[in-house]
This record gives sequence, C-alpha cells and structure tokens, in this order.
Amino acid sequence: MTAPPLHCPRCGRAAEGFDGCRVCAGEGIGVNTPPPLADLAGLDLASYPGGPWGWPKALPTPGPPVSLGEGNTPGIRLRIEPDGPQEGSAPGELWVKYEGGNPTGSHKDRAMAVGLAAAVAAGADTVVAASSGNAGAAAAAYAARAGLRCVVFTNERVPAGLRAQIDALGAERVVHRGTVAERNAAMAQAVEKQGWYPLTSFSWPSPGGNPYANEGYKSVAYELARDFAERRIDTVVVPTSRADLLAGVGRGFRELAAAGLLPEVPRLVAAEPAASAPFTAALRCADRADQERRRVASRPTVAFSLGEERPCWQGLDALWRSGGTAVAVTDEVITAEHRRLAAEGLLMESSSAVGVAVARELVTAPGALVVAIGTATGLKAPGG
Amino acid sequence: MTAPPLHCPRCGRAAEGFDGCRVCAGEGIGVNTPPPLADLAGLDLASYPGGPWGWPKALPTPGPPVSLGEGNTPGIRLRIEPDGPQEGSAPGELWVKYEGGNPTGSHKDRAMAVGLAAAVAAGADTVVAASSGNAGAAAAAYAARAGLRCVVFTNERVPAGLRAQIDALGAERVVHRGTVAERNAAMAQAVEKQGWYPLTSFSWPSPGGNPYANEGYKSVAYELARDFAERRIDTVVVPTSRADLLAGVGRGFRELAAAGLLPEVPRLVAAEPAASAPFTAALRCADRADQERRRVASRPTVAFSLGEERPCWQGLDALWRSGGTAVAVTDEVITAEHRRLAAEGLLMESSSAVGVAVARELVTAPGALVVAIGTATGLKAPGG
Ligand SMILES: [Zn+2]
Ligand SMILES: [Zn+2]
Repeated sequence: MTAPPLHCPRCGRAAEGFDGCRVCAGEGIGVNTPPPLADLAGLDLASYPGGPWGWPKALPTPGPPVSLGEGNTPGIRLRIEPDGPQEGSAPGELWVKYEGGNPTGSHKDRAMAVGLAAAVAAGADTVVAASSGNAGAAAAAYAARAGLRCVVFTNERVPAGLRAQIDALGAERVVHRGTVAERNAAMAQAVEKQGWYPLTSFSWPSPGGNPYANEGYKSVAYELARDFAERRIDTVVVPTSRADLLAGVGRGFRELAAAGLLPEVPRLVAAEPAASAPFTAALRCADRADQERRRVASRPTVAFSLGEERPCWQGLDALWRSGGTAVAVTDEVITAEHRRLAAEGLLMESSSAVGVAVARELVTAPGALVVAIGTATGLKAPGG
Repeated sequence: MTAPPLHCPRCGRAAEGFDGCRVCAGEGIGVNTPPPLADLAGLDLASYPGGPWGWPKALPTPGPPVSLGEGNTPGIRLRIEPDGPQEGSAPGELWVKYEGGNPTGSHKDRAMAVGLAAAVAAGADTVVAASSGNAGAAAAAYAARAGLRCVVFTNERVPAGLRAQIDALGAERVVHRGTVAERNAAMAQAVEKQGWYPLTSFSWPSPGGNPYANEGYKSVAYELARDFAERRIDTVVVPTSRADLLAGVGRGFRELAAAGLLPEVPRLVAAEPAASAPFTAALRCADRADQERRRVASRPTVAFSLGEERPCWQGLDALWRSGGTAVAVTDEVITAEHRRLAAEGLLMESSSAVGVAVARELVTAPGALVVAIGTATGLKAPGG
C-alpha cells in the first residue's frame, strides 16, 4: 500500500488507520487525519476537466480511477425576491451548485469514487459504510463499479427510496438496531478482524469520514473556481453535519490558492438546522479551545441527514482558515426554502434547502456572490 | 411570435400549430414538422459549453434561456464480458451516456428547457403535457423555473416516485381515465380554447412531441461529438418510443456534418422492447411506403415508458438518413441488463436498459465504438 501518510492537523501526530487522531480523541475531540495537501503547481484551471479524477495527481490514489461520471455538476442561479423597499440597491447573486446531478444523486459520489480507488489500492475485497443516507447509496454504487463487495450498516429510519437504491445496487444492507456505540464497535471489529475497508468513520467522537475518500470533495472547489473564473465568489455555504464536504471544499480552495490558481479563498459558511447546530453554537464561544469542546442537544429535524452534537474538528478548521462562520435555520425556514426551490423547478433534499436558506440570508449585500452547495436530489424522498 | 416556420419533411407542406402534418395524418402517418436545421458554420466543437443553451443559435428560440443546468451528462464506459473463446480479438467499446444526471433525472429536461423558452416567447401563461413518465416531471420543473402554470395529464399507471416528483414541483396533475383519443381531445380543446401551450403531442397518429422542444435533443449529438472528438463513434443506440430523442439526435449530427464539424454521421439504432417494437417490424419491410404504414400490437413490458403501435415517421427518417436500423430485445434480456447495470453501479430506468442491451449486441465487432443513451435515472422506480 503506497497511500500517502496521514497526520493529525491539530496535534501533528502521525495516524494509522481510519479512526481519527486517538490522542485528540482522548481529549474528547474528533479530529480527522488528512493526507498532505496536493501541489497543483503547473496545472491550469481553464482546462480542468472536472470531477475528482480530473486532476488525478490531486488525489491520494492517482488511479486506476473508479468512476461513474461524477462531478461537473451545474451551477444554477436562483431568483431573489427583494424583501424590503430598497429597489435601487443592486442585489447580490445567489447560486446553487446542484450535486443531485451526480450518478447516485448526491455529493457523496465524489468521495466514494476516491474511497473505492483507495480500497482497491489497499487490496481490500470488501468495503463497509455506516450510513442511513446518501453515503450508503454512493458506497454501494462505487463498490459495484469497482467489483468489490459492499456492506452498509443502516438504522431503521432510512427513507424507502434510499433503501431501494442501496438494495438495487447489490450492497448487503445490515439494519443495526443497537446504539451508535454498538454499531461503531461492530464496524471496528469488521475492519480489524475481517480486513473490511471502512468508507465512513467508526470511532468516537467521529472524525468525519475516511480521509482519503474525503479528498474527492476538493473537486467541488476546483469546479467552482473554474466555472466562476474571473468572478470572485464571496461565500460558499455548505450544509454541514460531520463536515466532510466542508473540510474537503476548504482543502480544495487552499490548494488552489497555494498554487496561485485562485487569488483569494472564499469565505466558507456551515449551514445547520437549528435543531442540531453544534458549529453555530461553537462559534459563539470566544476561545478556540472552548469551540472544540462545545456540545449541543441534537433534536429531530426535517433535514434528516444532518444532525450532530459536536462540531467535528475538520469543520472548525475549515471555518477558521477561511474566516467563515456557521448559521442555523429553523425547520420552518428549511421547509419554506424547500418549497421555494421546488417552485423554481429544483427538487432537492431538505438538507440542501438548509444551505440555500442560509445563503439567501447572506446574499443581501449588494454585489455579493454567494454559492450554496445543493447536496442531493429530492427524488429519494420527494416529500422531504 | 417570431418562432421559425414549421414544415412537413415528408410532403413539404407548411404546418401551423403543433399537431403534426395534417395531410400526412390523413394517410395514417404521424409526421412531425421541425423547424429548419440550424447553421452551425463558424462554431467550434472544442469550445461548445454543452447543454441545449450551449449554442443558442442552434435553437428555434435563441432566448432568454430557461435552464436548470441540464446537459453535459457523462459518458461511462461499461465492462464487456467476452461470450466466446475469441480472447485474441480486440473487443469493441461500450459506452452509456447517462442522461439520469439531468436536473429532473431524464433526457426530457433538454426538450423541456427549450419548450418552455418557446412557450414564454409565444406569450403563454400555461403549458400542458400529457405524460405518465419523465416528460411530465420535466415539464413541471421547467414551467416552475419559467414561472408558468403547468398542467400534466397522466393516467393511473404513473409510478409513485414520479407522481410525487410532479406534485412536489407544483404542477397540476390531472388523472385522465378515458382513452388516449379522449385525452387528446381534451388537450386539443385546452390548446385551442384556452391557449395552453402544448409540450407534448395531442393528435393522432402522434407526430412525436413539440417540434421546437425536440430541438433540445440536438445537444446530445453535439456533446457526443465534442466528448469523443477524434474518436469515431460507430453507432448510437437510442431507446425509442415516439422517436423524439432519436430524431433530435439525428438532426444534431446532421447539422454538425453540414457545418464540417463531424466527418461522418454515426449510425443510429432504435432500441425497442420486443413487446412493442414498431420500428423493428417496419424495417423488415423492403419498401419505405410499407415501413411507414406498419402496425404492431403493443403489449405490456417492463420498459413501461416505451411502447407504441406505429413507427413515428421522424424516427424512420432518422434511421434512413444514418443508414441505421432497429433492434428489439425481450423483457428477459431487458431485466437481465437492468441487473447487470446495477451490478456495475448504475441504477437506471428499464427503458435505459433496453438501449444498453441492444448496444451490447452490436459491440461485438472488434474496435467498434457503440454509445447507448441511458435515458433516465432508476431512482423514480428503483425496482424497474
Ligand atoms: Zn491529534
Ligand atoms: Zn406531410
């Protein structure tokens, strides 16, 4: 296995395996352990073909690619109805990058494409993902594409459409009725004893995904930088749970800036449902040490694929580095935005509406260009 | 209304309205009446941005665009397991162009984007589509995007996922329990008396869609020509019912060839379910006059969105001009291909499996490059 080394960006220690930094976990903080940033020097954004495999050298596993044509999702400009009487003021621009156009209908395809290539490179014959959402479907599809066996641990709250999707793609779906801790223990056992390759996290506190797989999300940043080219994006809003997408987008922008391909990194904003908003709560603390340790209650929300009690450290890091923030919106606002999107022709998952609703609040500054990541299609659960 | 004039390509007569050529209909033949081919001279394939709006001058309504980011769907190369012992022979290449990546999950988005722009240009306030499939969902989405009212006539066999999609997008869904003739009459009445703009056909025999909207499908041909560039595509296989997609793809290739942008037009092949295969039956007749008048029984098939009794003339024309043919596959073969695609990570509608199954039969020639159009995602009805 020639995969690049993993390090904890918080304490600097080398990491082995995919269960995050054990030292930081000992402090109660879930920290993911990414590979080094890629060197994009000499590459040209205008000719970037898009998708995680568009620039293989940016990935921990340069190939052979495992691909179903993911990436190159469209940017769609949304209408803004002015709230107030300021008709004279030039409104900002509100865009959504629609990740529902990916092969299994969500942004997770970018990560699983890279994760499966890493699994193949590691010599795995079985991959495992714990997910009651889009990650399970994406894992199933890319495992099938790679010719590997896939086991998906779900709970009983999986929407019917998603369940049918995972089953049709040939994954073994295991409904785990125990606690999250018990599920994690079962997954850790399978990883250690049976050599299954983990595509999602199984330690506590969650570091937020397989660090190699997460590198696939950097392509969202590359595509935004390419597609908006000379136009400066002020803010990118990312619906956030364990911040795998947020952290990956942040890393992509940092790589572009380091290579001189992007003059300025956009501000990143984590969008959360108010029912479960650890980042929003954390960033109200003045001190970073307090932010890392902030806990919130997690209540049910219409944005069922979001909801954590702790801010994953990789998300805090992405917000700190970009001068960003976190914003929470109520279920009422999320539902209204979901309807508003449908009324403009876009049927997305409720979690995507979280991002757009937050972006809509931020676009009030004249001339501002705000992009929300629309994480998934609404086809898997059209009502929500 | 400044839309370009419509003519019958079979008898040469000018046409008014969207009910096909009435003279040819009098002979029992449903002929669509497209606008003139676009002149693509001076355009450059390498810089074609993709999608129907990538080259606005190729469209009957140059704008303003109605768009949800449709087009630029990925090409995905599929595995071919050699059947026989000819291990020494270089196998052909089998590709699928995955239209399920479009905003509402099917190729129909390309047509409805253009159809809604035409409706807006015509000053319509309401559009109407008769569809129990993807066209209804696409009409609903693009009408919402354009800010127009949308009425969808469906029957009782609409899959639940599709029904939910149409409803969520705010269209008025009218379940019509009468015969097709009665539904057509109701739609004709709405078009004539209430000025609703028709996005699908409502005359008999069906000409196969709104001729302006169908121009959106030409972008499939442009994208294929751009993406495969120097590599010569031998055959493009299109799942075919009323041949709107087939005819549009054929027109796109013809425009490219006329402008010198493509050295040779690929052979087009109509893929049909054996249970309902008018093109396959027609092309067994030696004489074109007999081909036009061929009728078959239409039985139920797992490829529920396909199934006609007559070969729409626009499809015959596309096959004749490209030296193509039609191939039918049984439900058993369709179901097996559907599973085979899922086993490679691609969950598509059964109709898409029809095209891939036919393409798989045609790719046996060494070095052949065959592309099947994968018309829609399987998410709306994961079982079929
Ligand atoms: Zn650490
Ligand atoms: Zn005629």
